[in-house]
Amino acid sequence: MKTVSFHGIVAAREIVNRYLQRTPLRHYQELSEQLGFQANIKHENHLITGCFKVRGGINFIHNLPKDLKSRGVVTATRGNHGQSIAFAATQFGVKATVVVPYGNNPDKNSAMKAFGAELIEHGKDFDEALEICEKLQIEQGLYYIHPCLEPELFHGVGTYSLEIFEDLPDVNVIVVPIGGGSGVCGAITVAKAINPNVKIIGVQAENAPAIYRSWKEGRHVETDSCDTIADGLATRVPFSLPFSIINEGIDEIILVSEDEIREGIRNALRYTHNLAEGAAASTIAGAYKLTEKLAGQKVVMIMSGGNIDMETLKMVMTEN
Amino acid sequence: MKTVSFHGIVAAREIVNRYLQRTPLRHYQELSEQLGFQANIKHENHLITGCFKVRGGINFIHNLPKDLKSRGVVTATRGNHGQSIAFAATQFGVKATVVVPYGNNPDKNSAMKAFGAELIEHGKDFDEALEICEKLQIEQGLYYIHPCLEPELFHGVGTYSLEIFEDLPDVNVIVVPIGGGSGVCGAITVAKAINPNVKIIGVQAENAPAIYRSWKEGRHVETDSCDTIADGLATRVPFSLPFSIINEGIDEIILVSEDEIREGIRNALRYTHNLAEGAAASTIAGAYKLTEKLAGQKVVMIMSGGNIDMETLKMVMTEN
Repeated sequence: MKTVSFHGIVAAREIVNRYLQRTPLRHYQELSEQLGFQANIKHENHLITGCFKVRGGINFIHNLPKDLKSRGVVTATRGNHGQSIAFAATQFGVKATVVVPYGNNPDKNSAMKAFGAELIEHGKDFDEALEICEKLQIEQGLYYIHPCLEPELFHGVGTYSLEIFEDLPDVNVIVVPIGGGSGVCGAITVAKAINPNVKIIGVQAENAPAIYRSWKEGRHVETDSCDTIADGLATRVPFSLPFSIINEGIDEIILVSEDEIREGIRNALRYTHNLAEGAAASTIAGAYKLTEKLAGQKVVMIMSGGNIDMETLKMVMTEN
Repeated sequence: MKTVSFHGIVAAREIVNRYLQRTPLRHYQELSEQLGFQANIKHENHLITGCFKVRGGINFIHNLPKDLKSRGVVTATRGNHGQSIAFAATQFGVKATVVVPYGNNPDKNSAMKAFGAELIEHGKDFDEALEICEKLQIEQGLYYIHPCLEPELFHGVGTYSLEIFEDLPDVNVIVVPIGGGSGVCGAITVAKAINPNVKIIGVQAENAPAIYRSWKEGRHVETDSCDTIADGLATRVPFSLPFSIINEGIDEIILVSEDEIREGIRNALRYTHNLAEGAAASTIAGAYKLTEKLAGQKVVMIMSGGNIDMETLKMVMTEN
């Protein structure tokens, strides 16, 4: 089985640096006073696609063998992964086909097209969109990139955790949203190699708790739905590659409600003046539930992305 | 008279780089399609204080003679300039006193305190706050930093324009908000030295048109009020140092209405997923009025800052 390694993350670093600007790690004094610990935010929302995943896309396409590069790639997505692959493929002159379910967010669709991908609409949800990827792999010989099973995606994504240890060597805790799992696996792998005393805390949505439940109950749990405002957290199925790393290395997983995520989006705007999408705001939401446990510590919260559409933002801003 | 020079901006570059992370220049495809020209945004809102002015603060305090450093500095502000001086002074171990008018935005006040400044509330508006600065200069021997008359502030701020010419060497047009004038003076000075064919277009608010009118009417015009949502543009008085540079070197100044600025804030969120304060959104607002004139050109809009409070944002998000 393909695995994720610290060595792979270190090697990805140089590749990622060639194509992406380093993201800031920022200390926020007022948020720290609110929370009772040193609150730092890793601004992955500042990346060119507005999301951390592009680190993985760049590293993956770079490492794709030449003959596969010339054939092109296909993947399925609801947004951020597709933008990552679209952008990365374009950088390397590789043709990218991205499959989205019908009714997918039109803003995200046009962003993927703008980054140079060919877009196909298929199926009623993400799982049905995945099916046609396999078909295109066979029929057109495209390389099918599974968003949760490619180590080189994880290695690329892991570079943000390396940067955290450089910028804040005495970090105590890293709070990471868990959707597909690549971000948190990077944090676990890097912390284990550099300083195993650093705690990694994952955040999932109460409405999409597949990985939380699998970890808590010690068995593979899939959920029937994953209806959350935080589409980056909306996964129903824990995949083997990330889950084995999470299960072994995570210190804690906490759940946040939809109301808490919405308040997290508002607190991100209020205290950091950054637009955080639901998954990104979930770490701030989670931090408010950890104030006692983390008192006085140096905490990094991952602001994983900023791709929130206007309708959702308006809803979040008007309800309070 | 103290002057602003390209030489001063080049010298500031190394200083600014030591303390601040380079800001991205981003191309936005969907915004480009909307506007009919290549739309690029210089993200000064990504700086640590959320505003371009900190470049000036860093360069100014660095260049302050040692004996003045040990005495401390005082300035007046409604927000962004004060955050810049507070942050910069703290970096160099210099004591900073910042005077704000009564009723100043409490978010901005706490941000300045968080960056380490001592805050004094005085006077009903900015001009009355300035008065006590002069008093403190005399009584306590503090160095009084006038936000619009110190070349080293302008030199620091000018470094963002240098970065634009590095990242987009064939830029045709730079659109800059005009408040106090340091940003636009940097752009004019850098363009003149590197490529005088590059057009610099300034944006002011219809409700705060002092520099626009002074430039248009060829005489010094002060206005009685400057009631705009874009507090970074809210100046009633053109100061001699920036105005002489603007008057000689600007290609055009356009005015935007309050409604256009608000729509600019929404368009910044919609197309760039960045929170822009009014002054920063005024360049996007202005760009929508320049579509014919700039068709097909390579345009950079300065997103000067992201420091907008929740009340204002909520108002902007709910009205449309």
